[in-house]
Amino acid sequence: MGRITFLVLFIFISINTAAQKSENDSLQIRAIYNEVLENGEAYDNLRYLCKEIGPRLSGSENAAKSVTWTQQLMQSYGFDKVWLQEVMVEYWVRGEKETCVMHSKDTDAYTQLSICALGRSIGTNGQLSAQVIEVSSIEDLKGRLDEEIKGKIVFINQPMNQKYIETFRAYGEAGPIRYNGASEAAAKGAVAMINRSLSTIYDDNPHTGAMKYKDSLNMIPAAAISILGAGLLHGALQKGPVDIAMKMSCENLPDAKSYNVIGQITGSKYPDEVIVVGGHLDSWDLAEGAHDDGAGVMQSVEVLRIFKKLNIQPEHTVRSVLFMNEENGLRGGKAYARSAMNSNEKHIYAIESDAGGFTPRGFSFDVEPEKMVSIESWESIFEPYLTDRFIKGWGGADIGPLKSTGTVLIGYRPDSERYFDVHHSATDVFEAVNKRELHLGAAGMASLIYLLDRYGLPGKHNSGK
Amino acid sequence: MGRITFLVLFIFISINTAAQKSENDSLQIRAIYNEVLENGEAYDNLRYLCKEIGPRLSGSENAAKSVTWTQQLMQSYGFDKVWLQEVMVEYWVRGEKETCVMHSKDTDAYTQLSICALGRSIGTNGQLSAQVIEVSSIEDLKGRLDEEIKGKIVFINQPMNQKYIETFRAYGEAGPIRYNGASEAAAKGAVAMINRSLSTIYDDNPHTGAMKYKDSLNMIPAAAISILGAGLLHGALQKGPVDIAMKMSCENLPDAKSYNVIGQITGSKYPDEVIVVGGHLDSWDLAEGAHDDGAGVMQSVEVLRIFKKLNIQPEHTVRSVLFMNEENGLRGGKAYARSAMNSNEKHIYAIESDAGGFTPRGFSFDVEPEKMVSIESWESIFEPYLTDRFIKGWGGADIGPLKSTGTVLIGYRPDSERYFDVHHSATDVFEAVNKRELHLGAAGMASLIYLLDRYGLPGKHNSGK
Repeated sequence: MGRITFLVLFIFISINTAAQKSENDSLQIRAIYNEVLENGEAYDNLRYLCKEIGPRLSGSENAAKSVTWTQQLMQSYGFDKVWLQEVMVEYWVRGEKETCVMHSKDTDAYTQLSICALGRSIGTNGQLSAQVIEVSSIEDLKGRLDEEIKGKIVFINQPMNQKYIETFRAYGEAGPIRYNGASEAAAKGAVAMINRSLSTIYDDNPHTGAMKYKDSLNMIPAAAISILGAGLLHGALQKGPVDIAMKMSCENLPDAKSYNVIGQITGSKYPDEVIVVGGHLDSWDLAEGAHDDGAGVMQSVEVLRIFKKLNIQPEHTVRSVLFMNEENGLRGGKAYARSAMNSNEKHIYAIESDAGGFTPRGFSFDVEPEKMVSIESWESIFEPYLTDRFIKGWGGADIGPLKSTGTVLIGYRPDSERYFDVHHSATDVFEAVNKRELHLGAAGMASLIYLLDRYGLPGKHNSGK
Repeated sequence: MGRITFLVLFIFISINTAAQKSENDSLQIRAIYNEVLENGEAYDNLRYLCKEIGPRLSGSENAAKSVTWTQQLMQSYGFDKVWLQEVMVEYWVRGEKETCVMHSKDTDAYTQLSICALGRSIGTNGQLSAQVIEVSSIEDLKGRLDEEIKGKIVFINQPMNQKYIETFRAYGEAGPIRYNGASEAAAKGAVAMINRSLSTIYDDNPHTGAMKYKDSLNMIPAAAISILGAGLLHGALQKGPVDIAMKMSCENLPDAKSYNVIGQITGSKYPDEVIVVGGHLDSWDLAEGAHDDGAGVMQSVEVLRIFKKLNIQPEHTVRSVLFMNEENGLRGGKAYARSAMNSNEKHIYAIESDAGGFTPRGFSFDVEPEKMVSIESWESIFEPYLTDRFIKGWGGADIGPLKSTGTVLIGYRPDSERYFDVHHSATDVFEAVNKRELHLGAAGMASLIYLLDRYGLPGKHNSGK
């Protein structure tokens, strides 16, 4: 055989092999989608988590139930290893439902307003009454004189920016209002802080979420008010002075023992190299935590179920991690990363689903910008599944602490339009989740992990290879 | 000035002008999105259409109310011209709610099943009782011997294919079951036909829709059964013979007078060249027709409202057409196309929104495949708005008859995952529509029309230019 003939044949075989490989991958990914669209179990599992267990605030009895049940669920699927990882979690309780009545002094009218305490807030220690002062933003608040604020309840009436296409951008900008608003108000002598709910919908449900006191000597009660309530309060303030009488019996209790729930399919070639897929098992107490983040938790379990059902044996370990205490502490994510650092394992990729169980758009990759060109070469594989928007961006809160170990962090990105309608409010219930949308997300993550296991991220080689 | 200097300057100015133009377009499109995301009125208009008027089956009193109200709405926005176009519509009425009870002969058990008559079906003329025979598909039915079918109620238990990512593909394949099932069954002597609802969700709501008799001498009652009911019936048939007693009092009445509702902003340069944007005003009678197609109707009106509000003066006439009788006759679409052919106007583009008010994905263009390369050059403009999937495909039912006039037909394509959960069933109500998703669709269509008016579709020149 002449050298040129040999070369031609070699190229021919190489191309054929590559084409064959690519076709096999396409068929495998199609099989993953078929399995989840026809026989997916994430939706029914989510129903159980939401309806039979319900809200799962860290430290609560329901959180403990969800730990036991998801452990049993993963065991029932026959994953290679299922275990609990102990975590001491922040333990905040709301107590009795909050009350809030505004009193317009000029008209002597009393109106009930829907508020909820923010996570980590102290209570009001009985009823708290004071005059209200409205500010339009944290910046506005910072610019006020102390004597304007002192002794008053600060009402930060800043709406989320509706103009952004991706609602997470608006949430990112507005987040500091809820997180820091109380401390900023307290610094000027306020007696309480109420923020307009971080929400994209006009209704009467307040949206809770974590806040943080900058120093423990200057703590004031912090609450969110529904969008409807914010409108009523704003309207009343336009007409004259308004007092508010509010009562919140929330409190911070000593840390409680809880668990991350972990299951895995052990890698055939590189058992100590780990690909994580996860969401968080805890939720706020106001609803069922269906989108936030029951969806991500059940998708993560579903990824492993699909691998098992289709007999896909990964070369690396594929591990589903159901993190505890994302909402008010991130203790689960931190504990997992600590244990990862202290183990012999190498975490190569981590994918988080914590943006709701909505229709898939793609994935975000926490990598250097120049890496994106090669990563985008995979978009065409996901194009038939409408999950092909591969962008540079955030991984997720729970997997964030893994970054320092060199893990490539990846965020699953569903459509964001509806998320902040229900986020952290009483409407985040099972009925708000669509079966096909939820399942397509699980299939997308399973497909990406299948490719990561086989080839590594384009432009990045798996260390084991 | 030397020739080379001149040439360089010329190129510089050309590039600058093109860049300036492109930047102005970007700003205009951004302004369109800002307007609809902050001040959009489609959602509140849809609320009125759904809650104050309600179901709008052709020929009904509600359909007449919707004509009057949408005409007034367009007039209130100050469009240049608003008018009604008379259409004689098919007029089918359901009559009393259907009843259906199955009787398992072996166990002597009676079970109620949820069915609804299909549009255009005849009634049962009192109670109709017969044995049931299940077939898995139209093909299965065609393969049966006449004596197997004769005198029986045929139950076509074919599910929509859940494996497709785009649910419209599954609907397209399953459509003939509902449309032709009765005639196929009647040809073999069946006394009635019941099809498994064309639905992607497991619940007890039957999904109606149009059927058609192949010949008027061989008409049998046709109904859809809920997915839950289909499961019960299938289960009972596995155990032994089953009779069904059903009653439907639907009937076809003489054609009734109705209207397409039309409003426009008249073109400044080419008033006789028309860009249509439309949806259909009629709906099925079982629900509010929120996604099908109140959404498309209100988006179409919103497109013109945005132009008006932002003082965008189109060179061509931009016309919103609210078609009547899409669901059971397409008389509105046909009448509009006839009048277009008989006028001095040239219809250059027509966009239809009749796939639900869900989050936008892009547009489909009914053009020759080779045209798509240049059309796709506009995807980047819509990428920041996540509405950049420009594909070859269908325009829409109502605008379909315009095709013969040389109009380029364009379909607005929202995400399809949830559509067939609610389609033609009692759950297609206002609450199933999300404000941001609905409004983003209106903004996408307004932006596309803005570009079509200014530049024509890439690769196709507007005749007036």
